[in-house]
Amino acid sequence: MRDVAATDPAQTGSGDELPTPGDPSHPYQGDPVFDLHVGGKLETVARVPLTDAHDLALAYTPGVARVCEEIAADPSMTQHYTWVPNTVAVVTDGTAVLGLGDIGPAAAMPVMEGKAVLFKQFGGVDAVPICLDTTDTDEIVETVARLAPSFGGINLEDISAPRCFEIEDRLKERLSIPVFHDDQHGTAVVALAALKNALRLTGRDPATTRVVISGAGAAGVAVAKILLEAGIGDLAVTDRKGVLNSERGDLTPVKRGLAEITADVTGRSGTLADVLAGADVYIGVSGGTVPEEYVASMAPEAIVFGLANPTPEVHPDIAHKYARVVATGRSDFPNQINNVLAFPGIFRGAFDVQATAITESMKVAAADALADLVGDGLTEDRIIPDPFDPRVAPAVATAVAAAARRDGVAKI
Amino acid sequence: MRDVAATDPAQTGSGDELPTPGDPSHPYQGDPVFDLHVGGKLETVARVPLTDAHDLALAYTPGVARVCEEIAADPSMTQHYTWVPNTVAVVTDGTAVLGLGDIGPAAAMPVMEGKAVLFKQFGGVDAVPICLDTTDTDEIVETVARLAPSFGGINLEDISAPRCFEIEDRLKERLSIPVFHDDQHGTAVVALAALKNALRLTGRDPATTRVVISGAGAAGVAVAKILLEAGIGDLAVTDRKGVLNSERGDLTPVKRGLAEITADVTGRSGTLADVLAGADVYIGVSGGTVPEEYVASMAPEAIVFGLANPTPEVHPDIAHKYARVVATGRSDFPNQINNVLAFPGIFRGAFDVQATAITESMKVAAADALADLVGDGLTEDRIIPDPFDPRVAPAVATAVAAAARRDGVAKI
Repeated sequence: MRDVAATDPAQTGSGDELPTPGDPSHPYQGDPVFDLHVGGKLETVARVPLTDAHDLALAYTPGVARVCEEIAADPSMTQHYTWVPNTVAVVTDGTAVLGLGDIGPAAAMPVMEGKAVLFKQFGGVDAVPICLDTTDTDEIVETVARLAPSFGGINLEDISAPRCFEIEDRLKERLSIPVFHDDQHGTAVVALAALKNALRLTGRDPATTRVVISGAGAAGVAVAKILLEAGIGDLAVTDRKGVLNSERGDLTPVKRGLAEITADVTGRSGTLADVLAGADVYIGVSGGTVPEEYVASMAPEAIVFGLANPTPEVHPDIAHKYARVVATGRSDFPNQINNVLAFPGIFRGAFDVQATAITESMKVAAADALADLVGDGLTEDRIIPDPFDPRVAPAVATAVAAAARRDGVAKI
Repeated sequence: MRDVAATDPAQTGSGDELPTPGDPSHPYQGDPVFDLHVGGKLETVARVPLTDAHDLALAYTPGVARVCEEIAADPSMTQHYTWVPNTVAVVTDGTAVLGLGDIGPAAAMPVMEGKAVLFKQFGGVDAVPICLDTTDTDEIVETVARLAPSFGGINLEDISAPRCFEIEDRLKERLSIPVFHDDQHGTAVVALAALKNALRLTGRDPATTRVVISGAGAAGVAVAKILLEAGIGDLAVTDRKGVLNSERGDLTPVKRGLAEITADVTGRSGTLADVLAGADVYIGVSGGTVPEEYVASMAPEAIVFGLANPTPEVHPDIAHKYARVVATGRSDFPNQINNVLAFPGIFRGAFDVQATAITESMKVAAADALADLVGDGLTEDRIIPDPFDPRVAPAVATAVAAAARRDGVAKI
């Protein structure tokens, strides 16, 4: 009964004799990770006083009825008098959780709680984890659409490809609040920011830089799209069978679309080994392993991002033998491509201007803001800010809000 | 950007220049109710530290993956390592909000936030308001069932009759977590507690007491059922057309069922005036007005509960001319029948023993605990505890937990 002990034991709880969810005696007692997780990582807390009948009359009946009536008469009053405009639902079906895969909604909850905590800590955004007991695309879309009046935005999380693409597209079309699949766009924004600085450091022009992405799942597709948006002129994306191009008959609609705007344009084909030879940039979002000789075949001063967690596609010790700039998804190496650099500030900025969507240019603006924060401190080991740099979320939010206004999706 | 100012301005938010949901300049500035509601009444807050990479590695990746894997292997670990077992969804479709009626999901939010705040304040229960954009029974059932892995319990709220009965029944059958329609059972528990003390005060035996309930909506049906459960032997329920009995051809299935266990047994029929003549107890949950002469026709030392808000069916000044014990739903008269006396402790107790349901005897136990708290302080003006009496939720929770164990629905 943790909350009880922390607040007022007389007001809450049913007595010390009863076992509770937050009981300190748990199966993995003494393990710091499990000790930390006892009772969960998140709580809901009142923002208003509730200590006497006067408080109750303002916050609940009869006072609250007047607020309800105002919103019924003018739904835009929701923005002033509810928690909705500052609250995001972190929605998953548990099918693609971290590197663990399809572990189901119950087992996904600790990740969603963690995400919710990060939203608040870094972006001042209230966040509610929602783990759905369905993996059906139609049902997920319907369910989230029905929840929508409760939230100011929807953060989709750890939903497997290709369903994640359709779910996001349909929800974006249906709802007039931001819908953002973080595994796609969060990764894409931070990778673009890191790549921009890596290109600056190595004196490359995006238009003539040869980039290879391995992995055509949620992250790979989104990274490819944002790189094209940002002016990368020569891009090949590979899956397990090689470069995505229209000559292949085995592509999903999403992969075929990606082939048409990448390899079909540049004429790239073949295996990962074929396209990595002479490439300037490798971005791994596949979870596989790239043989050392492939890395050795890249252009001088190459850029290697192995973003799979916990095992990068190219270990930094190997990558550094051939590449000038190396990044991973891990916190124990320099240049961590960490989504937490993006999503809190992106939603903060979107919420601050009551954005009805998160557009492509809002994402690019977020990446630019992140890249700019490194400024004169740019070195091989510092192409991206630290997640705990307090300037990150405000800078991203400001850039995103401004882009929302330019795009005409800001309500204020 | 209220959260930001309250925590660490350097860590969060996008700068003072941007308008925010919590902007203090709002349309009804200076009105205490609206001032209190600016930015909403609820927030999500981290229960774990997140100030450096070490914290992040425990609460998020890579540490969290081990917790997810444990839950995937043994779903009961959810009880230890997530917020789920202490968290209730407060679910509405906005069709029967307070006395306002069908105002829709957006306008219902201030009430649901208020409810969530009360859950935490009085019961130490985390609560998330969910306002659904559908009024279809099947869709509500499906949606809530799909959300269920995210919550330890479901509190249905302000859903209009008769859909509320079917929705609750189907969810109870489908889910193995507590499902509780507060407008029914919260009201019923508190009314029963108050009635028990009123009967004690006036020396009546439940088995021979004649009770009349006006109103056969959510609250009326539930009050009737719990009174029968508690041994009231002579009960008539009226709707606008008179006493519910099987001779009437216009009854919904729920009303017909109620007729069969009340008036059909006692032989009561006719109008409200007919059955009130000589009755010992009147309980109004109808929202109508009972003429003074009806009240005058009741038995000596009558008991009159006019629970409609804000206008009781019988004004206390009128009631007191004829009745010995008078209760209302209002805080500005003695004997307030307020659901907040019940639902926080009921869920606290259910959660404390991981109850899979809230049974009839758990509700009766809650009512008994509430009635007992008055103890020797019992007078005409004090038949029920004050909502801010700190003993209330712990006493209710303890009684509910014990009843759950007796009923075999407690997992621990």
